[in-house]
Amino acid sequence: MYDIVIIGAGPAGISAGIYAVSRGKKTLIVEKRAVGGLIGNVSTVTHYAGIIEGETGTTFAKRLQKQAEEAGIEIIYETVQKVELNGNIKKVQTDHGVYEAKKVIIANGTTPRKLGIPGEKELDGIGMGLNAARDGKKYEGKHVYVVGGADGAVKEALYLANYAKLVTIIHFEETLGCIVQFREKVEQTSNIKLRFGSRLHAVHGVGQVETLEISDEKTGRIERISDPGCGIFVYAGTTPNTELYTQLRLNNGFIPVDENQETEIAGVYAAGDICEKQVRQVATAVSDGTIAAIQAAM
Amino acid sequence: MYDIVIIGAGPAGISAGIYAVSRGKKTLIVEKRAVGGLIGNVSTVTHYAGIIEGETGTTFAKRLQKQAEEAGIEIIYETVQKVELNGNIKKVQTDHGVYEAKKVIIANGTTPRKLGIPGEKELDGIGMGLNAARDGKKYEGKHVYVVGGADGAVKEALYLANYAKLVTIIHFEETLGCIVQFREKVEQTSNIKLRFGSRLHAVHGVGQVETLEISDEKTGRIERISDPGCGIFVYAGTTPNTELYTQLRLNNGFIPVDENQETEIAGVYAAGDICEKQVRQVATAVSDGTIAAIQAAM
Repeated sequence: MYDIVIIGAGPAGISAGIYAVSRGKKTLIVEKRAVGGLIGNVSTVTHYAGIIEGETGTTFAKRLQKQAEEAGIEIIYETVQKVELNGNIKKVQTDHGVYEAKKVIIANGTTPRKLGIPGEKELDGIGMGLNAARDGKKYEGKHVYVVGGADGAVKEALYLANYAKLVTIIHFEETLGCIVQFREKVEQTSNIKLRFGSRLHAVHGVGQVETLEISDEKTGRIERISDPGCGIFVYAGTTPNTELYTQLRLNNGFIPVDENQETEIAGVYAAGDICEKQVRQVATAVSDGTIAAIQAAM
Repeated sequence: MYDIVIIGAGPAGISAGIYAVSRGKKTLIVEKRAVGGLIGNVSTVTHYAGIIEGETGTTFAKRLQKQAEEAGIEIIYETVQKVELNGNIKKVQTDHGVYEAKKVIIANGTTPRKLGIPGEKELDGIGMGLNAARDGKKYEGKHVYVVGGADGAVKEALYLANYAKLVTIIHFEETLGCIVQFREKVEQTSNIKLRFGSRLHAVHGVGQVETLEISDEKTGRIERISDPGCGIFVYAGTTPNTELYTQLRLNNGFIPVDENQETEIAGVYAAGDICEKQVRQVATAVSDGTIAAIQAAM
């Protein structure tokens, strides 16, 4: 029996774990994949107060991992399949066992959205749906496409421009939806090309991407582009990982919480990107986890 | 004319500055003393997600400073004397000039509380009212006293125990009011002595502390202790630096804010320890600054 079980080992979950343990609570973090969450996969971590020079998703996740280990948090790598949140004893069931706790902190974030277009699945990882931090360098001197125009997309486009010969941003709006800082950098980067009012409609190829189909947002006209061996990086938003939380009322798929990060069920807290809130940044995730754990430990 | 003027360069103010600049806003931080705020003065920074190994107040403040410089935030070192928060153009008056802004973010935190006892002022800095990070090593092999029993006090007592021969914690309660992690460490530290139900009543000496008077919380009896050359470190809570904000309704001296960190005056935000809130940690200060700046920049 644990005092607190935390679902997810991103910044919110790790921060919650550090605080829970510091309050003397028997704490378990259940993580599906690896410490770091989505931010662990980005090319560069920006804006979070206290980051080191040249901070990458990898260096940041590594530091979180070490901090968690030194704090003595128990982390298990299992996939949660079912949760029982009502009652005084909460149950978290994974592919390996059932863990009981007095309190649960839900911090398993969001998942990048797929485009749902023809060829996406078949070419996944072989030219399509790539990760800039992991795959960017392989496209040195080549053509790459970034799908999306928000902060996450433009940040990775800027990173990819360090390696690729040409980066084309495909975005359905008529302007970039990112912060001014990134927009200005794009303007100063000669090998980034903007293709507005456009959507990636399909990808074709065998063993690699050979052809892209791009639709015009206004006319619906589809252009076929032959670009064998190009790389496509999709940053088209995220969806909250809340399928398992049927006992909670959700709002647009996100979990509403009060100022103590507590959900409508007593003893059940949520922290990080999975919460209904205005600002989703590493800083707010870390703070959510801090507050949730301190309140859960009371 | 600035878009955003931020008062205070602690974690909340620096985080706000980084985000404000990233949104393309002409931003000024007005700081009285140095980047880092109160956390810049602590011996060790703990629990904040992403800290480096052996993080001290100094290393953390240094990294904040560098991050602020690289973000291109304008920081001036002046003391705010008056603010005019109403109206569309806010005015921040310092000892050097008047700065106008469309939005103001108040992030000038709290100040450590003085005990207000005889001898405190006269012996300040010469044995009394010391700072563990700055002065601790000078007390190698000597006697030191820590006044207070909350997290801040006990953390510094643990740090001082690395140098001093004996650390006596003077606390008016009958138990330590700190987190379990620190309490357990105190139990394992042989040269920390706990003196509960006690208050430091007066200090005497010329050029150094020679005698301490400690009162018994229950009986009122005063004990005189002769301990020439000892060091006294006071961590007796903090008070919010809100004297200048007479235009804002305060609660117990703290500034109430909404979920966007906005105060009751439109365009005036508050972030960090100066806000009315449950949890005061570096993590929550950084998050407050992030949210305040993103909202102020909209």
